[in-house]
Amino acid sequence: MFEKMRSLVKTDSRPKITIYIATSIDGYIARKDGSLDWLDQVGGFDEDYGFQQLIDSIDGVILGRNTYEIAASVPDWPYKGKRIVVLSNTLQTVREEAELYRGDLTHLVTQLHSDGIKHVWIDGGVTISQFLKLQLVDCMTLSVIPVILGDGMPLFNALGNEIPCHLISSQSYPSGLVQLNYEIKA
Amino acid sequence: MFEKMRSLVKTDSRPKITIYIATSIDGYIARKDGSLDWLDQVGGFDEDYGFQQLIDSIDGVILGRNTYEIAASVPDWPYKGKRIVVLSNTLQTVREEAELYRGDLTHLVTQLHSDGIKHVWIDGGVTISQFLKLQLVDCMTLSVIPVILGDGMPLFNALGNEIPCHLISSQSYPSGLVQLNYEIKA
Repeated sequence: MFEKMRSLVKTDSRPKITIYIATSIDGYIARKDGSLDWLDQVGGFDEDYGFQQLIDSIDGVILGRNTYEIAASVPDWPYKGKRIVVLSNTLQTVREEAELYRGDLTHLVTQLHSDGIKHVWIDGGVTISQFLKLQLVDCMTLSVIPVILGDGMPLFNALGNEIPCHLISSQSYPSGLVQLNYEIKA
Repeated sequence: MFEKMRSLVKTDSRPKITIYIATSIDGYIARKDGSLDWLDQVGGFDEDYGFQQLIDSIDGVILGRNTYEIAASVPDWPYKGKRIVVLSNTLQTVREEAELYRGDLTHLVTQLHSDGIKHVWIDGGVTISQFLKLQLVDCMTLSVIPVILGDGMPLFNALGNEIPCHLISSQSYPSGLVQLNYEIKA
């Protein structure tokens, strides 16, 4: 699936950029306190919802600070062997395998391209909205979890600009998760 | 599909209550000015996305004022032969086929039940959130249109309470619309 999408995307001067994230039906990616416990309901189904396929297809990850801090606290760091960039204006250091970046995101992706990075996964609500605003996203995979959370950290932060999308595929799973795969139209 | 869902829902003291609405990927049901022009992209596909099936299965409709005013302005009133209730604290009159209601929604649905109404479609963002908060919704069909609107009138207004849902089915269409059918768990 990711290979198919790659062929549709023209990214001559920057890496392909992909969103892959789980959201509640009402568009939250975490509770107000950052908790992800509500994702547990779709675990235990012997199903990784394409996560390994994503990991195998990327060579870079750009993370917001919140997402980095959650990922860094897990014993099994999920980004082994990838170029990892953490976006933060407040952190002073990040773990050895990662690098800290503050500044212009267009410049960042141009730099990653110069360094030979081909496909970047961006993660975290604020980061995703920043990249969407800059029209720097090519593919978006949303995994809709069957719950209305009622409150939390939103995936989309009232972007302001309209972004047409093209449905590539959708798939439902026995857990009730529905995965929507879009290409973002330029 | 609606028949199947009906059998799963226990509604001894009130009608079955169903949400059937289109939403952008970022959860808006209309632009800020109420405009629905962005729905046009999924029109013209010789496909009604189950709308007639819904209409055939309901005998009542509860509308918010905004939705009523949009529907009332269309020459071909779409609710012919149904019991129509318009919720508004400001309107003084509604068209002849409809009735105006202000007051307790639990009381309203009990009254509709007493009057023999079996299945009600609720429409409009504020109305939907009110019914969800009161745990008075049984089924929810969301038609996700392939666009990020960036701003607009939200489907879910930070309900506060968490509502587990059960995926009944999902279906994608050539237009790129994906329809998600949920039963709301009691």
